[in-house]
Amino acid sequence: MMMNKMKDAQYDIRDTKFLKDINYPIDLKKLNLMDLRVLSDELREFLIDTISKIGGHLGASLGVCELTLALHYVYNTPSDKLIWDVGHQGYIHKILTGRKEALKTIRQKGGISGFLKRSESEYDVFGAGHATTSISAALGIAAARDFQKRDYKVVAIIGDGSMTGGMAYEAMNNIGLLKKDITVILNDNKMSIAPNVWALQNYFNELMTNEAFNKLRSKVWDLTGSLDEKYSDRIRKFASRIEGGVKSVVTPGMLFEALGFRYFGPVNGHNVVNLVKILEDTKKMSGPILLHILTEKGKGPSFAAEHPQKIHALTPFDKTTGIEHKKSTVPSYTKIFGTALTELAKRDKKIIAINAAMPDGTGLSLIQSEIPDRYFDVGIAEQHAVTFAAGLATEGYTPVCAIYSTFLQRAFDQIVHDVAIQKLPVIFAMDRAGLVGADGPTHHGTFDLTYLRLIPEMVLMAPKDEKELRDMLYTATLYKRGPVAIRYPRGNALGVDCGEFEKIEIGKAEVVRNGKDAVILAIGNMVDNSLKAAEILHERGVEVEVVNMRFVKPLDSEMLMDIFNRFDKIMTIEDNTIIGGFGSAVSEFATMHNYKNDIFIHGIPDRFIEHGKPEELHSDLKLDVKGISEIIGSLLIRKNVESEK
Amino acid sequence: MMMNKMKDAQYDIRDTKFLKDINYPIDLKKLNLMDLRVLSDELREFLIDTISKIGGHLGASLGVCELTLALHYVYNTPSDKLIWDVGHQGYIHKILTGRKEALKTIRQKGGISGFLKRSESEYDVFGAGHATTSISAALGIAAARDFQKRDYKVVAIIGDGSMTGGMAYEAMNNIGLLKKDITVILNDNKMSIAPNVWALQNYFNELMTNEAFNKLRSKVWDLTGSLDEKYSDRIRKFASRIEGGVKSVVTPGMLFEALGFRYFGPVNGHNVVNLVKILEDTKKMSGPILLHILTEKGKGPSFAAEHPQKIHALTPFDKTTGIEHKKSTVPSYTKIFGTALTELAKRDKKIIAINAAMPDGTGLSLIQSEIPDRYFDVGIAEQHAVTFAAGLATEGYTPVCAIYSTFLQRAFDQIVHDVAIQKLPVIFAMDRAGLVGADGPTHHGTFDLTYLRLIPEMVLMAPKDEKELRDMLYTATLYKRGPVAIRYPRGNALGVDCGEFEKIEIGKAEVVRNGKDAVILAIGNMVDNSLKAAEILHERGVEVEVVNMRFVKPLDSEMLMDIFNRFDKIMTIEDNTIIGGFGSAVSEFATMHNYKNDIFIHGIPDRFIEHGKPEELHSDLKLDVKGISEIIGSLLIRKNVESEK
Repeated sequence: MMMNKMKDAQYDIRDTKFLKDINYPIDLKKLNLMDLRVLSDELREFLIDTISKIGGHLGASLGVCELTLALHYVYNTPSDKLIWDVGHQGYIHKILTGRKEALKTIRQKGGISGFLKRSESEYDVFGAGHATTSISAALGIAAARDFQKRDYKVVAIIGDGSMTGGMAYEAMNNIGLLKKDITVILNDNKMSIAPNVWALQNYFNELMTNEAFNKLRSKVWDLTGSLDEKYSDRIRKFASRIEGGVKSVVTPGMLFEALGFRYFGPVNGHNVVNLVKILEDTKKMSGPILLHILTEKGKGPSFAAEHPQKIHALTPFDKTTGIEHKKSTVPSYTKIFGTALTELAKRDKKIIAINAAMPDGTGLSLIQSEIPDRYFDVGIAEQHAVTFAAGLATEGYTPVCAIYSTFLQRAFDQIVHDVAIQKLPVIFAMDRAGLVGADGPTHHGTFDLTYLRLIPEMVLMAPKDEKELRDMLYTATLYKRGPVAIRYPRGNALGVDCGEFEKIEIGKAEVVRNGKDAVILAIGNMVDNSLKAAEILHERGVEVEVVNMRFVKPLDSEMLMDIFNRFDKIMTIEDNTIIGGFGSAVSEFATMHNYKNDIFIHGIPDRFIEHGKPEELHSDLKLDVKGISEIIGSLLIRKNVESEK
Repeated sequence: MMMNKMKDAQYDIRDTKFLKDINYPIDLKKLNLMDLRVLSDELREFLIDTISKIGGHLGASLGVCELTLALHYVYNTPSDKLIWDVGHQGYIHKILTGRKEALKTIRQKGGISGFLKRSESEYDVFGAGHATTSISAALGIAAARDFQKRDYKVVAIIGDGSMTGGMAYEAMNNIGLLKKDITVILNDNKMSIAPNVWALQNYFNELMTNEAFNKLRSKVWDLTGSLDEKYSDRIRKFASRIEGGVKSVVTPGMLFEALGFRYFGPVNGHNVVNLVKILEDTKKMSGPILLHILTEKGKGPSFAAEHPQKIHALTPFDKTTGIEHKKSTVPSYTKIFGTALTELAKRDKKIIAINAAMPDGTGLSLIQSEIPDRYFDVGIAEQHAVTFAAGLATEGYTPVCAIYSTFLQRAFDQIVHDVAIQKLPVIFAMDRAGLVGADGPTHHGTFDLTYLRLIPEMVLMAPKDEKELRDMLYTATLYKRGPVAIRYPRGNALGVDCGEFEKIEIGKAEVVRNGKDAVILAIGNMVDNSLKAAEILHERGVEVEVVNMRFVKPLDSEMLMDIFNRFDKIMTIEDNTIIGGFGSAVSEFATMHNYKNDIFIHGIPDRFIEHGKPEELHSDLKLDVKGISEIIGSLLIRKNVESEK
């Protein structure tokens, strides 16, 4: 019905009954319980209308529409603290906390962030982009509250996907011991980013279909759902006896109970009236509480329920069909990688694909469907993914961990300690390396060249195009002597022909354009930009040599010596921080070999880069064609100035 | 009794009944069950005798003496795979697997490792030094087994301390879903490194004293402990019914059951005969199994039971009293830090101390006893520790995370994502930075200057002596604008007077010795070595300036420009990898500012450094006084050679 309405007319917020007057949580308090039902529909419609025009993470926020409303209705935010895990479930939260108008700027340069962000709003208590941080942060905030003898409430909202991360367990364990007043709301949509990676899910699923449990549970909830001050003590005692009985039958939530939490649920997360009642009850309780609610990711538009993974993050789409507006004919690096890995795995039975709850995002869904027995999704558990891979490698397998650059930071110690020290041939395929765009600073993959280069035994490379990505992956599967990491950017590849797999000599760079006036040593996606910049400079009579370095480790020292002997002016360029990265490696090399050439280290400056389209960010940072040619120009002017002296 | 015997006579392995003939697991198979009791005593005595002479981790291995014996007796190692968590529980394992003679070389340069190590023995299936990796590795190995359709057994042995790490949960979750045949043995000594950090422990403790449970449990174990082939099916069904009953009463091991494991225990881990019987039974079962055994850390000598933390790792001691042989009068950096933090916390109520299961190792036991309410031990959970700290910082507190350099690698992502992006004033106190000595490559803290320098907003410093450590900590507590990391080495400080706390200007270096021929830019513990080297060179007529750089980030650019203008020959020195570290930062600075001085980047080379005494390792790597003066000497010769040209 909602969809029809949307189809028939242009959306206008002035047509809403309540939403038009809602700007802050205080405005919600005027509404009665039944009004919230109408408002949640209006919120959902507003959200879909806005995001269909500009793109963004949608499914998670649609799933928590009623929950968000109920939380801001029951709790006294921002005095009470809501801590949202991951943060892309926070769109409704943003609408209700002063950012209704700003929603249309979300994830765009200069606009509001797609995630929670402390500097954006006092309602954003703790920023998040990576999963599984909320419970730890909540404990810190609750401990601070208790030191100050204040009495605000602390609520963490975490999805079942994030619950697969070890940090959640570390934090719950700690909370259970400290017995702090904290409510953790488990938003269980039975999938998070990808389905079925959480063992506990099976227990919950069995539970849902257990009649004895359901009868008991409804008794408990009939009672606790209608607790009032007068009778609360007596009723609570009774409820707790029944709860005890329930536990002995099917032990729901036993994981949480074991960790010292009082478990409530599961309850329907789309019944806003019931949610308000339950939250009003649990709000009065002390100690660690886990409230388990069931939601549907993408609840609302019909296409969202049919394609739940697709709706996780969207480019602009037709809101009646869910079809994205434009499609490029050039495949993405993600797809190229997924296809190449599947082809190689068909030839080489030792290849195993591993990912951390991102089969689509990493391109592994192809191997998942074609060779399911050699595909593992371990949940949002990057640490385990890497050491699991190390275990496989000890037995002669060639595991490929496909994990985004930014998320692999979670497994830094495991890469050092379990893989590199033991020289195990684990391959790291790092998608989303460099500036990722709209997701902003929590998601940019701009540190990997540094944090992997420092690790002994590591081979670290980045392809200039999709053919090289395929060849590097192939090369990595043949290497066998230790870990290999390949980093490649978000977005479309260049559209070059790939042909047969070809082995690349480890540590070998290539000159991709000859020149005499200056040289650009480029890595990864910066090779193409450099070539285009060289073309522009050529038209101005400046001949710039361009080297595709391919390897950040080991560096091609023969090539570097030749370059240092032939050129005075050298620019290094990378889509990575300039601190300790590729340019730093070249600088170290020059220093150690006593070369005195002029080197300009170009890359991401030493600060966190805000969100915006990659091309906008590259332009701002002079990493685009225009920027590169300008820098080369000024380097050469500096040369002339010096030679005139 | 054993202690008396040891007191009375020199230990001689030829006096043993069985141990003298035991070299490999195959030798065990000849023994009958009762012989194992004698052998376990002999093993314990041999272990204590050896370690009392040379030092080493003792408690963990004493605790698993009977378990190790039972495992090698029941399982067919190395075909069956034992994966030991952390690895310092592996001494008995080493004795039984070809390294009885080599034990006396343990943790010494050129000798065997104090941890498990793949390159050392085929029985060391997976190396370990950091906690909580074994279950993930076991899953990798089990998956490899299943791909190959082989049928060896995979057993992970993990302590209750390691069970507080999130990776254990990530791995168990994954195993529960995949339903692989894996046995996890939870070696529960109720403390691991420090006591009481595991919420589940409370459940187990309640359990132990629950009479109803104990009665049921003994029935179950009377049965399953005597299972034989003929009756096994029928008995198992019965046992499983009783088990079900037990669960409904007290739900033991419900955490593991929730994750899809079949839980057995708890059982006495010091009854070798019973352990053998139980392992023989569980070995026949399929699917994920968790066997919970109770042990005493340091079981054996009386002083070990009295001082369990003390016996975790030992310097050589008198085996009858447990008193360590020699004591330095100069306090350790650890103690200096612990005292300074306690003093500062008494003045500033916002300071909170956080550690990950290492109150003694980090020096926090002082603040733990003096200001217990502002002290948190979160378990072996570095990730949670850091984000918990971030949460505290959002509310205006000044958390100090005291975590060894090598272990902080576990929280790399949290430092970037939860602390630095949000500019939160969390202080990282990194003990054991640089080469730690006998613990070897898994424990050297030689990457922190690189992996922290790359993070925007980070202030990163290292003190030259204990006064500076105190002043840096004081400075860090006043900073408030973002994260601050302070790294300092293992071992004794220099013995200088500390006086009152003094604030150090952020990013300010100091010249500690004037010279004219060359300059050493030194950081942290390398300042003292450099000064001593400069003194030696002075006696030879060479005047070397020495700068205590103090800050790796931000660098003192004013000082560097002055140095680059005054000196041709510059050496940087650090107890960190030369890849992307302090010297690399100086090299980047020179490159970016177009300085052409000769720079020699000195530090840890780009390889994993084996174990040995820090002074031996520093000597090998020319990071000691002699090495530094030699390098300066050859740098100056190079200068002369060049100027003669």
